[in-house]
Amino acid sequence: MSFDRLAEKICEKQNPTVAGLDPKLDYVPQYIKEKAFNKYGETLKGAAKALLEFNKGLIDALYEIVPAIKPQAAYYEMYGYHGVKTLYKTQEYAKSRGMYVITDGKRNDIGTTMEAYAAAHLGEVAVGSENISPFCADALTVNGYLGSDGITPLLSICEKYDKGIFVLAKTSNPSSGELQDKLIDGVPVYEYMGQMCEKWGERLPGKYGYTGVGAVVGATYPEQIAKLREKLPHTFFLIPGYGAQGATAKDISAAFDKNGLGGIVNSSRGIMCAYKKEGCDEHDYAGAAFREAARMKKEIMSCIGQIKLG
Amino acid sequence: MSFDRLAEKICEKQNPTVAGLDPKLDYVPQYIKEKAFNKYGETLKGAAKALLEFNKGLIDALYEIVPAIKPQAAYYEMYGYHGVKTLYKTQEYAKSRGMYVITDGKRNDIGTTMEAYAAAHLGEVAVGSENISPFCADALTVNGYLGSDGITPLLSICEKYDKGIFVLAKTSNPSSGELQDKLIDGVPVYEYMGQMCEKWGERLPGKYGYTGVGAVVGATYPEQIAKLREKLPHTFFLIPGYGAQGATAKDISAAFDKNGLGGIVNSSRGIMCAYKKEGCDEHDYAGAAFREAARMKKEIMSCIGQIKLG
Repeated sequence: MSFDRLAEKICEKQNPTVAGLDPKLDYVPQYIKEKAFNKYGETLKGAAKALLEFNKGLIDALYEIVPAIKPQAAYYEMYGYHGVKTLYKTQEYAKSRGMYVITDGKRNDIGTTMEAYAAAHLGEVAVGSENISPFCADALTVNGYLGSDGITPLLSICEKYDKGIFVLAKTSNPSSGELQDKLIDGVPVYEYMGQMCEKWGERLPGKYGYTGVGAVVGATYPEQIAKLREKLPHTFFLIPGYGAQGATAKDISAAFDKNGLGGIVNSSRGIMCAYKKEGCDEHDYAGAAFREAARMKKEIMSCIGQIKLG
Repeated sequence: MSFDRLAEKICEKQNPTVAGLDPKLDYVPQYIKEKAFNKYGETLKGAAKALLEFNKGLIDALYEIVPAIKPQAAYYEMYGYHGVKTLYKTQEYAKSRGMYVITDGKRNDIGTTMEAYAAAHLGEVAVGSENISPFCADALTVNGYLGSDGITPLLSICEKYDKGIFVLAKTSNPSSGELQDKLIDGVPVYEYMGQMCEKWGERLPGKYGYTGVGAVVGATYPEQIAKLREKLPHTFFLIPGYGAQGATAKDISAAFDKNGLGGIVNSSRGIMCAYKKEGCDEHDYAGAAFREAARMKKEIMSCIGQIKLG
């Protein structure tokens, strides 16, 4: 099962973190942009080529200590179909380096349309007599607002192609409570969504206690993380909000079980823009990303101790 | 304001319908597929080229009587970045024919990430000294599960570039009630989301009583449509679920105000696959789409009478 593979990679690196690759052009060192613009002009293609080179450098620097990447689809769509090509090439490159790939797309729809998203991001499509993978992620983030009709089409694809999903439960943003904290029969919406994840996950059981249906739970809400870990014992957590959004390693320690499993913590800007914060030469952007990832690993591991596969 | 333009196009055509362009390869006539596969092989590129030709034929047949198209992003992502290029080319072609373009992406995220989606689908991005539109829709469907942090980044872009959004409220699928019908302080989630649309919309007032923040309300729930029309007097409705999903013109007549404004009804498979239902020669697929669109217009207009701009 897909999250078994994720857990194994996390254990192997002793590092429950994922590098968010959300590459705005502003984050890319000048020398990379100049090279791409000289060759392709100040065009969407030029921008997309610059992002890909930036990402490859980050992946090369990180893959030995970080088990996974999480490209955020928005930052690729921002550069049109050229940007979307860079999303695919980034996934492909990270997989060639042995990394687990989570596409952060928060996709949602129903029935055959959700099947189309599932085939696109996690499965294959038939073209004449060929079956082709349009993208190549190991897992996809999704939004469960539409109910089971939006989630069950994914489960068959996850079963067939050994993939996983993370459903939004409690997001890391300040206004997440506007809907997610409201009570339904005395239970907050985010917990109700979490309970649906436990139910949906029954179809995708795993070796280490977690199913293939995970939940997104923001690092910025430590009390809710603790409560959800208790109530959702089979749901793996993808945890955004560490670093730039203000949460610390201590805030998220409750996400992990007694074996140190059960969650993966995202850092995007913290890693991608480490060279700006360090103030080092921009040619050393990947080195700075490595140093920040190593620091983050150390900080988080100091709170959760060793990671064991049960 | 963007929905003023939509209302004007609807009034001009006396037709409150939108053609959903959700082109699976299965829907495309054999002769179009063969031509594309002969030239580009059985590849994602070949598939994407076939879809584009199919879409262009539909647009040419429809633009004189149908005011808008709604391409569903999932069916383009299904063919990878080549498919996403076809999404862009389809939007561009429909706009060249004077049609209003609603991208059905149900996008959602927060802060700078939502800004990236907004820039991608509704705005512009800076590349060096150039400002470029990565896509070119007039409106985008979005999911409000993350609260105001997920919606307000869109409002500035809508203001600046004269665009609109449709927020999911009550979706057309059977299980939409799992979350959307649950009560929050005695109010169903879908109505609560609708109230937020009214609030968010205050920043984008329009000439004909409707703001630039619309709501998605399924045709399959006529009682809820009637209730929402009463409670959300400034919110324009995008109405899926007509035809293939079982709803009739009568079911949706309550979505419209006394001027016949306030809603636009989607038909996807009904129009795209009309040639299969008719059993006509596949070379006449666009003609069959026109005939079905004309039939649908007549049926809906018989329920709502004339459309006037206030």
